[in-house]
Amino acid sequence: MTSKKRLSTRMSHIAPFEAMEIQSRARELEAAGHDVIHMEIGEPDFGTPVPVLEAAKRALDSAPMGYTSALGLMPLREAIAEFYRAKYGVTVARERIIVTAGSSAALLLVFDALLDRGDEVLMTDPGYPCNRHFVRAVDGVPVPIAVDASTNFQPTAVDIANHWRPQTAAVLIGSPANPTGTVIDADVLKDIHREVSARGGTLIVDEIYQGLTYDVAPTSALATLEHSDNVFIVNSFSKYFHMTGWRLGWMVVPPAYVRDIETLAQNLFISPSTPAQHAALAAFAPDTIAILEARRAELHQRRDFLMPALASIGFQSPVTPQGAFYVYADTSAIARDSFVLSKRILETAHVGMTGGKDFGVNQPGKYMRIAYTQPIARLKEAVERIHKMTRNET
Amino acid sequence: MTSKKRLSTRMSHIAPFEAMEIQSRARELEAAGHDVIHMEIGEPDFGTPVPVLEAAKRALDSAPMGYTSALGLMPLREAIAEFYRAKYGVTVARERIIVTAGSSAALLLVFDALLDRGDEVLMTDPGYPCNRHFVRAVDGVPVPIAVDASTNFQPTAVDIANHWRPQTAAVLIGSPANPTGTVIDADVLKDIHREVSARGGTLIVDEIYQGLTYDVAPTSALATLEHSDNVFIVNSFSKYFHMTGWRLGWMVVPPAYVRDIETLAQNLFISPSTPAQHAALAAFAPDTIAILEARRAELHQRRDFLMPALASIGFQSPVTPQGAFYVYADTSAIARDSFVLSKRILETAHVGMTGGKDFGVNQPGKYMRIAYTQPIARLKEAVERIHKMTRNET
Repeated sequence: MTSKKRLSTRMSHIAPFEAMEIQSRARELEAAGHDVIHMEIGEPDFGTPVPVLEAAKRALDSAPMGYTSALGLMPLREAIAEFYRAKYGVTVARERIIVTAGSSAALLLVFDALLDRGDEVLMTDPGYPCNRHFVRAVDGVPVPIAVDASTNFQPTAVDIANHWRPQTAAVLIGSPANPTGTVIDADVLKDIHREVSARGGTLIVDEIYQGLTYDVAPTSALATLEHSDNVFIVNSFSKYFHMTGWRLGWMVVPPAYVRDIETLAQNLFISPSTPAQHAALAAFAPDTIAILEARRAELHQRRDFLMPALASIGFQSPVTPQGAFYVYADTSAIARDSFVLSKRILETAHVGMTGGKDFGVNQPGKYMRIAYTQPIARLKEAVERIHKMTRNET
Repeated sequence: MTSKKRLSTRMSHIAPFEAMEIQSRARELEAAGHDVIHMEIGEPDFGTPVPVLEAAKRALDSAPMGYTSALGLMPLREAIAEFYRAKYGVTVARERIIVTAGSSAALLLVFDALLDRGDEVLMTDPGYPCNRHFVRAVDGVPVPIAVDASTNFQPTAVDIANHWRPQTAAVLIGSPANPTGTVIDADVLKDIHREVSARGGTLIVDEIYQGLTYDVAPTSALATLEHSDNVFIVNSFSKYFHMTGWRLGWMVVPPAYVRDIETLAQNLFISPSTPAQHAALAAFAPDTIAILEARRAELHQRRDFLMPALASIGFQSPVTPQGAFYVYADTSAIARDSFVLSKRILETAHVGMTGGKDFGVNQPGKYMRIAYTQPIARLKEAVERIHKMTRNET
C-alpha cells in the first residue's frame, strides 16, 4: 500500500532559498575539482573571532551544557544591554532582551505571537526571502512594497499608508537591508513608525546587519524611536559578530510581550544553544571588538573596490550600499534574466552569485545580489572571470 | 500614545511550560541559599560526555563554524544511519535523515509541512506538553486521547479508530513516553499504523528517549514498521546522548518529503548548529557509547530504588516505566491537587517535581512527574524530605 503525500496548503508558498541552492551546486563543482569563488551566501568569510572560540572552549571545560532559561543566560542579556548603552547610547532593560536560536527563531516567535491567519505584513520587495516565509509559516500574508533606488530601496511613510488595509498587522523594515545593503534614514523610520502607530500596528525592525555600516554611523531603531511599546527589534550574532554557524541571535521586545514570547519560546525551542551563549559572552570584549572593527574596515575596502569593478563590466549598482556586505547590481545590460545569468556565471566562470529571484517579484530578473565575502584579490578574479565570459559570448 | 497589545488568537492556547516555571522558582530558592533537589526537568544530570566535549573543542580549532547544509553535515547523517544499522538492525538511506535544531525544530517542521488550520493530530493525554503547542503554533488542533495504566499509558488501534474524524491528519506516538516512561508494544504500534494508513493519515513517532530503556530492548519504529512512506521519526541528541543544551536532534522522513522539509528548513532555520553537529559526530564512538551505557545502567538502578521509595510515602506509580527517566506517580492519597502539592514540596521540602497539569487535562491533579535525574543519595534525601513534610502536615 502506498500512502498519498500530504502537504499543508502553505507549502505551496514556500520556495527554495535559491542562494543555498546555488551554494549546493557550487560545492558540487568544487568537489569535481573546480575553483569556485563564493559570493552567493550571506556569510562572512572571516570565521568566528578567536576570542569567541577560546571562550567557547573554556566554557566546555567549566560550564554546564544543559538547558538555560528560555530567555537566555542573564549575563548574556546584560552584556547585550550594556552593548546598546556603550555603542548606541540607549538604555534597554535586560528583561526586554530575549536570546534566540538565531534571528530565524526570533522572527518565527514574533510572527507566531502576533499574526492570525490572513493577517498581512508589509515588507520591501526586494527583501530577505526568509522573511516572507516566516509569515507564511503561520498562515500570514506577506505584502510586498516595491522599492527602488529612488528611495534607497527602503519604504517611506507614504508607502505604508498606501499599502495599509484592515487586515494589516505589522511592518517589517530591514536596515541595513538584505539584498541591497541600504540603511533607512532616521527621519523616514520615525515617520513610518508614526504611521504604523496611528493604525494600531506593530513595527518589526530587522537589525541583523547592525554595526556593518561604512559611510554612516551605526544606529539602532531603539535609539531612533522613543515610543517603543509596539516595536520589536531583531538582531543576530551571525553578521557583525561573524558567528553564523552558531545559530544565535536576540530580540528586544516591548515589556508587555516578554512573558508571551517566553511562554512561546519555552514550548517551541526550550532554550537557545548553551555553548553558543557562552561563546557569545566574549563577543563584546574589547579584543573581539577590535577584530570585528578591523573586519568592518576590510569590508569597507572591498565594497569600494567592488562597486567600480562591477560597473566596469556592466554590473551597475543603482545605489551605494551603506551597510551589510552586498551589492545589488543591475545586470540588465548583460542579460535579460539575472537568474539564468547567475547559473551561467557559476557553470562557466565558477563564481557564485544570487539572481534577484530570491528576493521578490519586483523586477527580479534585472538584479543580481553579489556578496563581497571574499578577499579583494578573489573579488578581482571573480570580476575578471565574468568579464572574460561575457566578452566571449559577444 | 500607548499602543494596544496585539496577540494572535493561537496564543490563548499556548500555556507556560510548568516544569520550567518550577525550575525558575527552584533556582530562586537556590539563590537564596537553599539546597534544592531538582527532579522537575527532563534533563539528565550527567552532563555532556567528555569525548563529545573534546570533539567539539577539536572542531573549534580546525573546522569552519559557518552554516552547513540545511539538512545537516553529511558525515553526521551517515553516522546516524550507521547507528540505526548497528544498534537496531535497520537500513535507512542517509538522504532520509535530516539533522535539526533539537527535536523541537523537527516537530515544528513536520507540523508546518503537514497541517492546515484546523487539522487534527491525535496524541496521548498525559503527554509531552510542547507537542500540543507545536500543533497549535501552526493553527492545528491537538486532540487528546485519554490513556491510563490499563494500556500502559499508550494508545491502542481502537483509540485511533474512535478518535479519527475527517479533519484528522496525523497521530503522534511517544515511545518511551514523557511523562510516563512507558514503551509502546510493537504489535500495538503496527496495529495503529495500519489504522492510520487505512485512513490516509500520517504517523509521527517521537523516539526522543530512544535507547533509555531498562527491562526491554531498545527499539525503533523504523524496524517495527516496514511500510514507512507515511511515517516520520523524530529523535534527539538530548536524552540518551546527554546533549540537552546543544539543541540538536534529527528526523527520518519518507523519501517523498525530504525536499519539502529541506525547503522549509532552509527558510525557517538556515541550518542546525555547526559546533553541535561536530560534537555529535563523536556521540556514536565506542568510548562515548560505553559512557552512555554506564549511565543507562545507573538510571536503571535509580528507577529501581525510587519506585518503592516513593510508594512507601504514598506516591504510587500505576505502571513500571520501561524507559526515559520519569516516574508518573499517583499522589491522590496525599493531596487533591498535584500542582498545589508540587508547589508545597518545592517551598517546604525544597524538592522540584512537576504536577500533572503540564501534561494534559486527563486527571492532571492526580499525578506527579518525578524525574530521577539525581544520584540515588539525593533521591533518597528527596523522599525523606517529602516524607517529613507530609508527616508534619498530618
